Amino acid sequence: MRTVDWQDGHVVVVDQTLLPGELRMRELRDTDDVVDAIRRLVVRGAPAIGACGALGVAMAARAAGGDPARLHAEAERIASARPTAVNLRWAVRRALAAGPVAGAVLAEALRVLDEDVATNRALSVRGADLVAELCGDRPVAVHTHCNAGALACVEYGTALGVVRALHERGRIREVVADETRPLLQGARLTAFELRELAVPYRVVVDSAAPSVITGGLVDVVVVGADRVAANGDVANKIGTLSLALAAHYAGVPFVVAAPESTLDPATPSGEAIEIEERDAAEVLGYGTQRSTPDGARAYNPAFDVTPAELVTAVVTERRVVRPSNGERPA
Amino acid sequence: MRTVDWQDGHVVVVDQTLLPGELRMRELRDTDDVVDAIRRLVVRGAPAIGACGALGVAMAARAAGGDPARLHAEAERIASARPTAVNLRWAVRRALAAGPVAGAVLAEALRVLDEDVATNRALSVRGADLVAELCGDRPVAVHTHCNAGALACVEYGTALGVVRALHERGRIREVVADETRPLLQGARLTAFELRELAVPYRVVVDSAAPSVITGGLVDVVVVGADRVAANGDVANKIGTLSLALAAHYAGVPFVVAAPESTLDPATPSGEAIEIEERDAAEVLGYGTQRSTPDGARAYNPAFDVTPAELVTAVVTERRVVRPSNGERPA
Repeated sequence: MRTVDWQDGHVVVVDQTLLPGELRMRELRDTDDVVDAIRRLVVRGAPAIGACGALGVAMAARAAGGDPARLHAEAERIASARPTAVNLRWAVRRALAAGPVAGAVLAEALRVLDEDVATNRALSVRGADLVAELCGDRPVAVHTHCNAGALACVEYGTALGVVRALHERGRIREVVADETRPLLQGARLTAFELRELAVPYRVVVDSAAPSVITGGLVDVVVVGADRVAANGDVANKIGTLSLALAAHYAGVPFVVAAPESTLDPATPSGEAIEIEERDAAEVLGYGTQRSTPDGARAYNPAFDVTPAELVTAVVTERRVVRPSNGERPA
Repeated sequence: MRTVDWQDGHVVVVDQTLLPGELRMRELRDTDDVVDAIRRLVVRGAPAIGACGALGVAMAARAAGGDPARLHAEAERIASARPTAVNLRWAVRRALAAGPVAGAVLAEALRVLDEDVATNRALSVRGADLVAELCGDRPVAVHTHCNAGALACVEYGTALGVVRALHERGRIREVVADETRPLLQGARLTAFELRELAVPYRVVVDSAAPSVITGGLVDVVVVGADRVAANGDVANKIGTLSLALAAHYAGVPFVVAAPESTLDPATPSGEAIEIEERDAAEVLGYGTQRSTPDGARAYNPAFDVTPAELVTAVVTERRVVRPSNGERPA
């Protein structure tokens, strides 16, 4: 089963807001559905929203009936549904460039999906090799944040793809998964995937990550990315910086696993990355339970930027770049 | 109103598990009640559990009717209710040393309470002076973690005491309060206190702290402590290390506000501090809401240790110690 797929002329996605309690597919029938699903994190994870966006353009192309202006307008709505991950705009552009004929757009969008799967597998093998190189060829404990697994992609995963490749080699001792407030993608989604894969894991609150890392409980940090700037700065889920700072302090390798499509040569550094600020309500409570007093305000940035000097390596399907050594991805 | 007090022959405490929704006092009538209240965080915060412990010994002294062995056994049960904060054992010992006559124990326990109030005010003034010295005499934004306010003490507060003293001088622009998973003492208690004090504040998820600090949104970090080792290592609520690492990286001052009774000359360094590990259920969900899949495991350390080299200053009622400059508290 793919996280994002095409079925009977529509986009279907796993509804990630319902996991781990319920595994249900949701059909998206037009651009409104696609934008809403991306905004509400029904579908999330940089590669997955890219794939969903590309298929959304395929639906829009059919609806536009060959009208390029209409198709462009719809594609722009999809591309700007969320600002930080570069894969969305990249995939939308790719599908759009194949237009305006609907069949050609769909074929290109499906290629984006297939390539994502192949890409994930390739970068995961490369990432597993890298972890073996950095930590020695022994079972390791991996710390990860948010969800960069099959659910964040079409299949397989990026950071969790690396974990999966290591697990297939018998080289995973444990995964420590941050719960990832406010929306708990680690507690909900990463835990769900690790259970399915039968990988031993423990969940920690996000703020425990630094002491887990400096305390020697993990051998390596592996995370995904929403955008990697040309200089190697990495935008990823809020809290990633916390792990990078602790890993740097403790001398633990900090590895980013992401496809080439997440690398953005047009963004010179992290300062140029727009950080999405989400609804305060996500922070003011936990699920449906409100924790804060009436009138409380919150600041809710969805991402942070880890400076290149803290990034041991960025692993893609094609290469390993070492920003902390001064190497630039682009 | 005091967070911990003595009324009609019993200990009374604000039930902090009910805040911010409900402000209710709870009567503790014997050692079992006291131990349970401390363990379940009905009363929490290093100075507050110290005060509660001392009053608990006063109740035990009355119940023991002058039998020193029985009194010692009860006192030991109270002292070991939670392991990390040194104030509990310190205050219990102090009350016990005045025994076994019940009246003398009570008088000493009440002195612990009165001194805590005076101590908080003194260290808060000193802390406010220090912040002015470190940041310049202008309105500042303060980042804090967990709750080190009036609710964590008898009255007034330590880290929030510093905020309060600055606020009285018109020198607070804003407080950024971490929500402090898993039990949300920041979202629930610090937000409650700041609202009562009419101090402008915003709540953030814990993992946003590093980007708030490195992004220049705050001028200084001020936190409390559960134990300060002789070398200046600081045990405090899980997540404190995250702020210290970010502050160090960004060149933002990291200030610990705590009474002398939190400084423990008998603990040479952070390695010797026992870190309480609490129930996994606290991490696997919140309140009645479970977020993780069935069978999920969690690791739930309640505290972390910030190395002395990351601590700009420890402010007590008597002095300012600068561990990052090599000064030792004891």
